[in-house]
Amino acid sequence: ANSYLGSIGTTIFTVMSALAVEHRSINLGQGFPDTEGPRDIVQAAADALMDGRNQYPPMPGLPELRQAVAAANRRFYGLDVDWAREVTVTSGATEAITACLMAVIDPGDEVVLIEPLYDTYVPVVRMLGAIPRIVRLTPPHWDLPRDQLAAAFGPKTKAILFNSPMNPCGKVFTMEELAFIAGLVAQWDSYAICDEVYEHLVFDGARHIPLMTLPGLRERTMRIGSAGKTFSLTGWKVGYVTAGAALTPLVQKAHQNLTFTTAPNLQRAVAAGLSRDDAYFASLATSLQARRDQLAAGLAKVGLSVLPTAGTYFITTDFAPLGFDGDDVVFCRHITEAAGVTAIPVSAFYDEPGAPRHYARFAFCKRPEILEEAIARLKRHF
Amino acid sequence: ANSYLGSIGTTIFTVMSALAVEHRSINLGQGFPDTEGPRDIVQAAADALMDGRNQYPPMPGLPELRQAVAAANRRFYGLDVDWAREVTVTSGATEAITACLMAVIDPGDEVVLIEPLYDTYVPVVRMLGAIPRIVRLTPPHWDLPRDQLAAAFGPKTKAILFNSPMNPCGKVFTMEELAFIAGLVAQWDSYAICDEVYEHLVFDGARHIPLMTLPGLRERTMRIGSAGKTFSLTGWKVGYVTAGAALTPLVQKAHQNLTFTTAPNLQRAVAAGLSRDDAYFASLATSLQARRDQLAAGLAKVGLSVLPTAGTYFITTDFAPLGFDGDDVVFCRHITEAAGVTAIPVSAFYDEPGAPRHYARFAFCKRPEILEEAIARLKRHF
Ligand SMILES: CSCCC(=O)C(=O)O
Ligand SMILES: CSCCC(=O)C(=O)O
Repeated sequence: ANSYLGSIGTTIFTVMSALAVEHRSINLGQGFPDTEGPRDIVQAAADALMDGRNQYPPMPGLPELRQAVAAANRRFYGLDVDWAREVTVTSGATEAITACLMAVIDPGDEVVLIEPLYDTYVPVVRMLGAIPRIVRLTPPHWDLPRDQLAAAFGPKTKAILFNSPMNPCGKVFTMEELAFIAGLVAQWDSYAICDEVYEHLVFDGARHIPLMTLPGLRERTMRIGSAGKTFSLTGWKVGYVTAGAALTPLVQKAHQNLTFTTAPNLQRAVAAGLSRDDAYFASLATSLQARRDQLAAGLAKVGLSVLPTAGTYFITTDFAPLGFDGDDVVFCRHITEAAGVTAIPVSAFYDEPGAPRHYARFAFCKRPEILEEAIARLKRHF
Repeated sequence: ANSYLGSIGTTIFTVMSALAVEHRSINLGQGFPDTEGPRDIVQAAADALMDGRNQYPPMPGLPELRQAVAAANRRFYGLDVDWAREVTVTSGATEAITACLMAVIDPGDEVVLIEPLYDTYVPVVRMLGAIPRIVRLTPPHWDLPRDQLAAAFGPKTKAILFNSPMNPCGKVFTMEELAFIAGLVAQWDSYAICDEVYEHLVFDGARHIPLMTLPGLRERTMRIGSAGKTFSLTGWKVGYVTAGAALTPLVQKAHQNLTFTTAPNLQRAVAAGLSRDDAYFASLATSLQARRDQLAAGLAKVGLSVLPTAGTYFITTDFAPLGFDGDDVVFCRHITEAAGVTAIPVSAFYDEPGAPRHYARFAFCKRPEILEEAIARLKRHF
């Protein structure tokens, strides 16, 4: 058996969702909406199944979806993208992350990562024989320690991989931070893998800025988007990578060995989705923002300290004010079993020792009445 | 950029399909049917989209599909499989192969492979830092050189990965050959990764025998199946791995970092498909066998020497009798451009130098009238 995989656990999202089912708990753990995505997109996927195009689509994705991804890059960020040379469709963002790492990493290379981090980053970096160099954001404001980031880069750095808007902490990287990162990427002649699956889920009038739009970064960046998050259809597993024309063939050669391609009917429906009008994207963010506010207010009333969230599906809370006797893993199990509400321990987003142990992440991508009930349950318990 | 990926090409299937489109050639290259899969399965997938289960399914796959895979193992091969502990759904067999290799391989391990081989095997083995040990079958009967296979195993062997029924040559491994392989796997305390995507596409009353059914191999084997091939829906990319209860968690930990999961509506439709009656599976094989015979007879009339095919979508031909002046790559390009029929050069299924250069692979999973027209075009040309 592979010795590294043997040492890691089943992903925390699966573990906590199973525990939630077992205890009939309200699952504010794993990040997925409890409503369906737009009916017309789902209908488009069903229609596309019935018209006889269920054999292999082209390995890099259907032209219509790659064109739609290129058009979205232009529309939302002013990026001029050649769909035929710069866009690849993947089987979800998870595959996209792995394919992008494979595209550029050689064994022995170093990859800069920012903690807290999504739980596939470190295992994939290690499986590819590379060395993670992890920089930790400083809570509660999740500040980027620039000196430490600069120190993490060096002659062996091949890439930085980071997530903005950031799961679990809801940080949206600022232009100043991105410019600092961009400077390091260029200085060390490296690449950036930008996991931007929450690009459209930003609140309070803030906007997401792709690192790719910064001067000098266009050709060095692999930008990852996700239909699951953009259309509230997390099960579809349709992702896309926008990258320079020199990097794209490498991403595709990794992709051809990982999944080769993705169901054509889902690709066609996502292409239709990306062409929706601005009102769709605005209302997606507005609706989530309202639920963020609802859950944040409720959790504060329960007595948790609520950290600010500028994007994503998630709120991080500090449960220290409750006087709970136990770490975040114990806390999340406890509230699942005893209160009937499930959250994710934020230490699961840390690889290095010394992670904070007093934060729990709650997902607010749920119906208002469910959030209401979760808050009521927690209130009864604490 | 990754130096190994930089050195490999775009998969031959993509290259030749693109060339076929460019020259409006009949594509007997990439292996996909030119008809749709069973209407009721496609309809089941469309219905499943509309009933509100489009968020993340469980990471190892939906219980209903895992149960159907376990039941198919029992029904077709007498294997007693615990769906909850021994079955994993993947995003196609390509992901399954990569996940199974990741599950067991450490850098520096050796993996025994059998040439001709599918084109993702060697790149993935190398990306994981392992060393391929390749044994070559002897054409035209694709005999297994047992002494060479025995010599390829050793103390560093972690696994053998092979394909039966075998693409491109249509070989179905015999019980004697499988017993020999099983002995080596056990002797060297290693694992077997069995790519059995063509398990139901066997002809002339022969039957496919999973290595997993052999004594001592049950717990050492990862057996891979594919809905794409079993239901003529190659674009769906739904695969499944049956493996012992100790191996399955490792396969799933690889899977969670590769794609995490696969569209639930497609999983549900495939579960329905696997429950079809014996007549379905029999008629799938019978129908393909008839087309194999049609294409084999036609290619023989054209003047090619046709090698026997006991399973898969493919016929290997020796074009030496035509007196063509050029290798198999030149031949396949030539017939695409000059005759309007596309095939795959068999040397693309070889990694080591010294591959045969006079074989071309033709796919017969096409409508009879298309095969007819392809034969007519080749006849006109040669
Ligand atoms: C792929 S399951 C995890 C979903 C998610 O992004 C999260 O909950 O953080
Ligand atoms: C994944 S594209 C290749 C299809 C196939 O198995 C083949 O043509 O050999």
